Amino acid sequence: MSFVNRQLLLKSRPEGLVRQDNFELHEQATTELAEGQALVRVLYLSMDPTNRVWMSDIPQYMPPVAIGEVMRGLGLGRVVASRSAQYAVGDLVQGLVGWQDYAVVDEKRAKDWVKLPPNPPVPLPTLLGACGFSGLTAYYGLTEIAPVQPGETLVVSAAAGSVGSIAGQIGKLRGARVVGIAGGPDKCRHLIDDLGFDAAVDYKADDWKQALAAATPDGVHVNFENVGGPVMRAVLSRMVNGGRVALCGLIANYTSGAKPADDYSVIIVKRLTVRGFLAFDYRDSQRAVQDLIGWVREGRIKAGETIEDGLENAPLVLNRLFEGSNTGKLVLRVAEDA
Amino acid sequence: MSFVNRQLLLKSRPEGLVRQDNFELHEQATTELAEGQALVRVLYLSMDPTNRVWMSDIPQYMPPVAIGEVMRGLGLGRVVASRSAQYAVGDLVQGLVGWQDYAVVDEKRAKDWVKLPPNPPVPLPTLLGACGFSGLTAYYGLTEIAPVQPGETLVVSAAAGSVGSIAGQIGKLRGARVVGIAGGPDKCRHLIDDLGFDAAVDYKADDWKQALAAATPDGVHVNFENVGGPVMRAVLSRMVNGGRVALCGLIANYTSGAKPADDYSVIIVKRLTVRGFLAFDYRDSQRAVQDLIGWVREGRIKAGETIEDGLENAPLVLNRLFEGSNTGKLVLRVAEDA
Repeated sequence: MSFVNRQLLLKSRPEGLVRQDNFELHEQATTELAEGQALVRVLYLSMDPTNRVWMSDIPQYMPPVAIGEVMRGLGLGRVVASRSAQYAVGDLVQGLVGWQDYAVVDEKRAKDWVKLPPNPPVPLPTLLGACGFSGLTAYYGLTEIAPVQPGETLVVSAAAGSVGSIAGQIGKLRGARVVGIAGGPDKCRHLIDDLGFDAAVDYKADDWKQALAAATPDGVHVNFENVGGPVMRAVLSRMVNGGRVALCGLIANYTSGAKPADDYSVIIVKRLTVRGFLAFDYRDSQRAVQDLIGWVREGRIKAGETIEDGLENAPLVLNRLFEGSNTGKLVLRVAEDA
Repeated sequence: MSFVNRQLLLKSRPEGLVRQDNFELHEQATTELAEGQALVRVLYLSMDPTNRVWMSDIPQYMPPVAIGEVMRGLGLGRVVASRSAQYAVGDLVQGLVGWQDYAVVDEKRAKDWVKLPPNPPVPLPTLLGACGFSGLTAYYGLTEIAPVQPGETLVVSAAAGSVGSIAGQIGKLRGARVVGIAGGPDKCRHLIDDLGFDAAVDYKADDWKQALAAATPDGVHVNFENVGGPVMRAVLSRMVNGGRVALCGLIANYTSGAKPADDYSVIIVKRLTVRGFLAFDYRDSQRAVQDLIGWVREGRIKAGETIEDGLENAPLVLNRLFEGSNTGKLVLRVAEDA
């Protein structure tokens, strides 16, 4: 049995935002499965800043996607054909499916794939967001990388985004005063009214630095940083001596093309601990996922997604992350779950 | 009893290297001691990169020295007159004596001063270097901030300097492979032949980046960083995933006048932990000082000093730190110990 597999191939490396013509939509038939392999119908793709990093030929934690290759991307789907005892038709699997309709899983690379329960306790997009890598990133950032303590002030940047929105809510669960930084009054209202943040700072407002100072009268103990650039500089200038930074992302740098102009001196002056981390390092964590699923089901954490449709739209949908026009987890629906 | 007190007052803020005319040598008589005070004859001044930072009106861990004030500086001296039961004539004290002949200590600020034994077990300049703040900085950097383990590779920048030379030797005591970065073949030979480093990289040589790579075949586990700029970038590019950085100084930035162009992304890509710290935070440590004195006396650590003479020369002597023309601790002798 063979299926038509549409694939988005990287044709050229984008400068700044992604253009549709950086990609080519290529169709080919799925090939015969080898022993130990299974074919997965991709249902949802996770749209992440790291996709944009993978398109650039810069030092990073994986090799960049080569020109002509299927674009790398995290997602989930269901097994539709199998020559493996480990993967049965109907099984739900998550991993680097790529920007395509069909992906092949292989027993030999089983550690690269997570098998999910066939009838998961939360909606499928939430498994890519609050209960997936986004949630795991928030979880480990605030429990292992920079554990925030009751009464401390936590500042989260890109706070209305997939990771930031969960990080802020975990900060509240841990008893911290939580201040979110986001773009625009609607997102700021969402942080306070819907997600329970203590304060929100609109970085698009003229007086945002004063607003940040007013929202952090005792300084900042922990910074969960997703953005970098001027936003991060402003937060670091508010940190207490001995403060901790969970350095999760530097989205401001990913599309700017300008050379970074960060400054390490503040790390000495304020005796900061800055720790970089990647959700991929925590992919085996079952306990964290169970915690997150429990919190979502109990309503203690609100999982929000922005869902777009159509594999062919992936390049331009991804730009929404850099334009700041999504709230919560940005997910692309490739096919309806049958 | 009154003494002529020569003081170096900050007249203008230097750009780049310090000029003699940024200072004014001012003479005035010492004033009458109040109850609880003692007068200290300054014997030695510690010449430190932080002196240069204090001259600039930039964010830092203490306020900058104000124009017209006596230049701030660490040093030690002997009590020559006293109206305090805590400080007897002949006592040796260490603290922020300032760039002057005589300093006043006060019981009310006793915590700002360290009383040393009248007949210390190591020479006085060593009490400012290997067994003083320089040694403490190295000690805490490699035991608390970024503890280096046996078999790991430690890279120390400014390795022939006061802090770096001790850091490298402590790394050896802890069983690490130690690579030092220093300027010029003489310093590099000194690191290997005299101080027992495993390898040395001359950053003034054309092929220094290749030399660094060759000296760190297993990557870099711990970076004791004193320099910043291109040297630090090269070391970070060699770090293993999960590596640790004890961020002690960024001397490359202190006199350049250019805006820092550091890049935080490597911290994420390599999941680094970067911790800033200051020796001043450890000034109460008796155990560390005893350890350091013991190691120096047993010959397990070689304490080296470059000693210059004359209070009036302090501004230009300080520049030697930035020109890289000193080895070991740079100390200014203000007066002979009677």
